Amino acid sequence: MSHVETGTLYVISAPSGAGKTSLVAEMLKRDRILGLSISHTTRPVRPGEQDGVNYHFVSREDFEAMIRQDEFLEYADVFGNYYGTSQRWVEQALAQGEDVILEIDWQGAAQVRRLMPHCVGIFILPPSPEELRRRLTGRGTDAEDVVERRLREAAEECSHAQEFDYLVVNDQFDVALDELLAIVKAQRLRGSAQQQRHADLLSRLSSS
Amino acid sequence: MSHVETGTLYVISAPSGAGKTSLVAEMLKRDRILGLSISHTTRPVRPGEQDGVNYHFVSREDFEAMIRQDEFLEYADVFGNYYGTSQRWVEQALAQGEDVILEIDWQGAAQVRRLMPHCVGIFILPPSPEELRRRLTGRGTDAEDVVERRLREAAEECSHAQEFDYLVVNDQFDVALDELLAIVKAQRLRGSAQQQRHADLLSRLSSS
Repeated sequence: MSHVETGTLYVISAPSGAGKTSLVAEMLKRDRILGLSISHTTRPVRPGEQDGVNYHFVSREDFEAMIRQDEFLEYADVFGNYYGTSQRWVEQALAQGEDVILEIDWQGAAQVRRLMPHCVGIFILPPSPEELRRRLTGRGTDAEDVVERRLREAAEECSHAQEFDYLVVNDQFDVALDELLAIVKAQRLRGSAQQQRHADLLSRLSSS
Repeated sequence: MSHVETGTLYVISAPSGAGKTSLVAEMLKRDRILGLSISHTTRPVRPGEQDGVNYHFVSREDFEAMIRQDEFLEYADVFGNYYGTSQRWVEQALAQGEDVILEIDWQGAAQVRRLMPHCVGIFILPPSPEELRRRLTGRGTDAEDVVERRLREAAEECSHAQEFDYLVVNDQFDVALDELLAIVKAQRLRGSAQQQRHADLLSRLSSS
């Protein structure tokens, strides 16, 4: 009869240029049980940003204390600012029945997988190297060496695709979106989740 | 570069009255890669039935030879006629990239799971014991003891729901259908399947 419904943590990775951010934004619009993980950061608040909405803004001192207490699922120092995902924050959201999406690179994903082995990993692929190059070249205003570095990083990211539970190819946006939503829907139908959700029904049906 | 795409075997069970047969029929209409497992039987062909379409019609002698050679994933003797699922037939369909649905009770499902551990088990539940009783009572023309036996069998079947990978509650037909199709769609996006399907893309993206 208890109702200990718990959500699923989705770890979504992709090379830049695969369309991950747009796809995730649309997933969040379509599925109201899904939420994005809100990172902690030490970088200054920008105009229009809200603490607890865009980021959890904390001091460098507090962030480093959290590091020492192993509070982060993963964290990184990017150009002198820390960014990290609090394990406690994620676990609280999951305990409330929310599904949480973490957008992260393959290295962060590997760390999260070790700490939260029940997470579901999804890797989004571009439809071809040619299309990826087109998307990364952008408006053609970037220096050749910048584009080449992005392509090398994308190749490195893609070489870890096989570490993920699901692979989605973003050829047509709507098809890829539909596939991502099907993964989330199917995950909610897994026996373990449904047994909790429908414990009462199962017990009544088995004894009727 | 090889293209060894293989399908998934879905083992779908439910108490009678859960709506399994109607749901499966609609799944087959909506998803053309899905096919129903065609059983072998020794019962006589009925008018309108075709060998290899409705059943594989075989002699009692042939069926018993297949039993001795362990060719069945599961079989049963129902009122003097044999019915069984040929493992070779299922494996050939899967090797051709088809997804195969096997409608079967929990005991058959347990046998299949042992022989083909990669199968995906789905259990369909009615929305409540009251609704199940209504559906099993039918037109009210059946004797009380017949209805009671059906209810006991349904309760027995439901007590094995937790042995399945997915649970779907058939409260509204369209919702349940949508959930079943999402399970099939998500299964096709699993890393192992997608790595085979997109081996070429993955290798080109990782070396670009």
